[in-house]
Formats: sequence, structure tokens, C-alpha cells
Amino acid sequence: MKVVLVEPEYPENLGMVARLCKNFGAELVLVNPRVEIDDTVRQRAMHAQDVLDSVKIVNSLDEVDSPYLVGTTAKLASDYNVNRAYEFPWELERVENMALVFGRESTGLTNEELALCDTVVYIPTRPEYRTLNIANAVAILLYELYRREDERTVADRKVREQIYTFWDGLLDRLGYPRDKRRIQLLLFKRVLERARLTAREAYGIAGVLKKLQELF
Amino acid sequence: MKVVLVEPEYPENLGMVARLCKNFGAELVLVNPRVEIDDTVRQRAMHAQDVLDSVKIVNSLDEVDSPYLVGTTAKLASDYNVNRAYEFPWELERVENMALVFGRESTGLTNEELALCDTVVYIPTRPEYRTLNIANAVAILLYELYRREDERTVADRKVREQIYTFWDGLLDRLGYPRDKRRIQLLLFKRVLERARLTAREAYGIAGVLKKLQELF
Repeated sequence: MKVVLVEPEYPENLGMVARLCKNFGAELVLVNPRVEIDDTVRQRAMHAQDVLDSVKIVNSLDEVDSPYLVGTTAKLASDYNVNRAYEFPWELERVENMALVFGRESTGLTNEELALCDTVVYIPTRPEYRTLNIANAVAILLYELYRREDERTVADRKVREQIYTFWDGLLDRLGYPRDKRRIQLLLFKRVLERARLTAREAYGIAGVLKKLQELF
Repeated sequence: MKVVLVEPEYPENLGMVARLCKNFGAELVLVNPRVEIDDTVRQRAMHAQDVLDSVKIVNSLDEVDSPYLVGTTAKLASDYNVNRAYEFPWELERVENMALVFGRESTGLTNEELALCDTVVYIPTRPEYRTLNIANAVAILLYELYRREDERTVADRKVREQIYTFWDGLLDRLGYPRDKRRIQLLLFKRVLERARLTAREAYGIAGVLKKLQELF
């Protein structure tokens, strides 16, 4: 399990998230952090200094080593905004080496970053005030996943991406214009990724789509 | 729904808890707070200034107006420590005007305070590091309860306390020594309170115990 913070801005939050990683057992990854690991961070991390000592820092989200990226959003959009199609925390499953991805305190994850994620989770709150403190959001998701007994193994990202490449090829041949094709592709990805494909299932679907593409 | 902080010590946490009250819809009650509502508190509360403006401050836990107090503990004790007999967050039910009670950041709730609570909840974490930041614990419980659709109405505290008075009387007549009687009483309370008694059920049990006491 990994907790990934994209461009974290406040040392207090970073420290609290490190503590949570220790409470629930997760590695901490920072994407292009806006804060240093300073005294405030260390103080708020309490007994989780080792999490800070072994933190991994990368430059962009696609460098995160995980077969399953779970993005987070507090912004609900209509069903037609495919980027933000979401599932609830209690619908999530524990996937081997999964990564929970949290955006900047100020602005969250961008649509581009959400598109990189395999699925997106939304923590329901009152419409009056939807944005949770980032550490509180991390707490809720780690709590939800910690109590799952079973851990799924999803198909390799490579096979899953083959599926989407075939699907994209089919959409192309069906004459979808470029922007509609992007949406249709993401929509299909969101649906399949919510199903947490096994290798057997992924190969099966990839096989069918490949045959379809050959027939065309 | 109320969130009750007993002797909170850090302004950052108090502010974050106020924010959570706004996110999930709860009133904030402070028992004998060790901090003022200062700028730090206000800052961390973000868009929940109204929660701070209407905060209720009392001197002790038994002044909290609620038919159902849920204590929290990060300390697991053996099954024989009846004070800390617990349920998990996902076993909790939403009870009308319930109060979630959180202890001091440094030392939690005392056994005496836990004995005042109707039930006790424990958030499972890794044994390596069990204590969660208080705001994160509040986040997890409010999240769990927010998504419950049904809200129970429990029997009046008065009727439930009659049950325990009758039970205590029976234990007395059975010759239990004072300290064992206290434990047996708390044990019975913990079991019954986990069942969230309806008025009908509470009156039923109280009636039986009353008859038993008259027969003795």
C-alpha cells in the first residue's frame, strides 16, 4: 500500500499523513513536494519518523510504481464528466501494491492527473462543505482499506493497457472524432478498472478486442 | 450528532475537528478545554467558523446532553477489562442525538469517563502504532456514521438506568462484593448498550428485573 501526495503544500499535513502511514501500514511517496521535511513535519509525524526517513520523492505521477492508482476528488461533477466518474470508499477493494493518490491542499488533482489514475474515489460529505483536510481524507481511506481482509491481484498494467489500445483502435475505425474518442476511452477504462480485472479476465477481453480489430 | 472533546490540548486539532463537524454535520462540545479558540483554531477550521461560534463548553462529561455517549479508546485491554470492552466503528449505529466522545491528545479518556459512556468504540490500527491523531479519529467515525441511512431512537436514558439500578440491586442481594458488583454492572451495561435498546425492549427488561427484585 502506498500513499501518494501530489505537490503537498503544508508541513503539518505531511507530518500527519506520515503518522497515518505508520498507523495503518503504508509507504509514503511525494510527487514534486512544495515543502521540505522540516521540524514541523517531524513533530507532527510523532512516532513515524521511519516513514519520513524512507519517503520516496518523484517528479511526476507516472513515475509512481504501482499497478493500481486510486485518485481522490472532493469535486463532484455530472455523470458526463468521465474524468471524475467515481466510486465510494466502501466500494474500493484492497489491491496488491495499490497507491492512494491525493492532490494539492489548495486545488486537488488536475483532470490530467485523474485520467492517469485507474479509478477515482469520492468521500461523501455534506454539500455545504465538501473539502476534507487532506490528512483526514487519508485517514478515512486507509481505515477503509486496512480492515479489508482479502487483497486482490489485478492484471498487469501492460495487459490492461492493451485492452484500451485495442478499444481506442476500434473507436478510431468506427469514426469517432478525436475528443469523443478520448472520452469514450476513459469511460471504458473507468468501468473496467472499477471491476478490478484478473489476469484471466484481462487476457480474455484483450483477445476478443484484438480479433474484432483484425476483422475490421 | 455531537462531537465531544474532553480537555482538548492543541489548537490545530480543535480547528480541524471543527472543520470535520461542518463536513459531516455535527455540533461541537468541549469539556473543560485546555485551549482557547484563538487564531490558530480559527485558521485550521477553514470554512467552519460557524461551528466555532456555536461551540458549547461544559465542565464535565455528565453535563453533555445526549441519550447515547460513544467513548473512544486506542488502548486495547484484555476481555477482562470491562471498562474498555469495545465495538468496531462499522458496528456502530447512528442514534438520534448521539455524542462521540474523544479524550485528551496525551492520555485519552480515563476509565471513569469511559464508564460514563454507553458504549466504547475502537478504531483498529497496526499494533506497532495504535494512537491516531484525534482529528483523524474524529474523521473516521464521522465518515462511518454519516453514511448510515437509518437513525435509531434509543430508549430514554432514565429507563435504561432503571434497568441497571435493578440489576445492581439483584447483584447486591446475590451477595456480590462491592468491586465485583461494579464490574458485573458495567459488563451488563456494555452488552445491553451495544444492542441499542428500543423503549419497548427497555421497559420489558426493566419490568422483568423489577419483578425479580420484588420476589427476592
